[in-house]
Amino acid sequence: MDGIHLLGEWYGCVADMPEITRADALRTLCMRLSDDSGMSIVGESFHQFAPAGVTGTVLLAESHLAIHTWPEHGFVTIDVYVCNYTTDNSAKAERLFQAIRDALRPQRAKFQAIHRGGMDA
Amino acid sequence: MDGIHLLGEWYGCVADMPEITRADALRTLCMRLSDDSGMSIVGESFHQFAPAGVTGTVLLAESHLAIHTWPEHGFVTIDVYVCNYTTDNSAKAERLFQAIRDALRPQRAKFQAIHRGGMDA
Repeated sequence: MDGIHLLGEWYGCVADMPEITRADALRTLCMRLSDDSGMSIVGESFHQFAPAGVTGTVLLAESHLAIHTWPEHGFVTIDVYVCNYTTDNSAKAERLFQAIRDALRPQRAKFQAIHRGGMDA
Repeated sequence: MDGIHLLGEWYGCVADMPEITRADALRTLCMRLSDDSGMSIVGESFHQFAPAGVTGTVLLAESHLAIHTWPEHGFVTIDVYVCNYTTDNSAKAERLFQAIRDALRPQRAKFQAIHRGGMDA
């Protein structure tokens, strides 16, 4: 039951853009880009912190997207995890990850790709 | 903006227990154990796959819990990610991870702990 999990820490994002500060704007962005990337959305939850900042997830048939923003630091963490059960979803995951990165425009980034699974289920 | 992300792949879980097969049972378990572990819940979303299997997340003020089950394989993947922004939440994360593991009782497990952040925000 192999899968790929992409983890990003993004620094120097545009701190006052609605997609960083507001749950509704980030939800709209994540839902649209998940769909554009060929993912199958099965649920979502986004929470607005006061005065600004968001934590949210999009549940995917392929697994999940999770994102957290700290506008006061221009900082974002993101996870895109897909399981490659019946088909290889790695390309979709990379597409989604890159599309959100393009939207939030970090100046610096840390990236890790973690292989999941690897034992016989 | 450091954080710790615990990733588990659990094999040989009891495949027919409701907490593996049913979204409502897994939601109840995850919400209770998140609360018991001292986490602050700010949202949740769980999806029921047909005929069985669940994907779900609990949004935390500390970051998130994500869990996916494949009952037909007795297989579960889990993520517990906490950011240690104002306080060190690592112990809470380990407590939550272990509590869910105790509940789902995998026979074999793969575990990774990923350090997140590490650049100046």
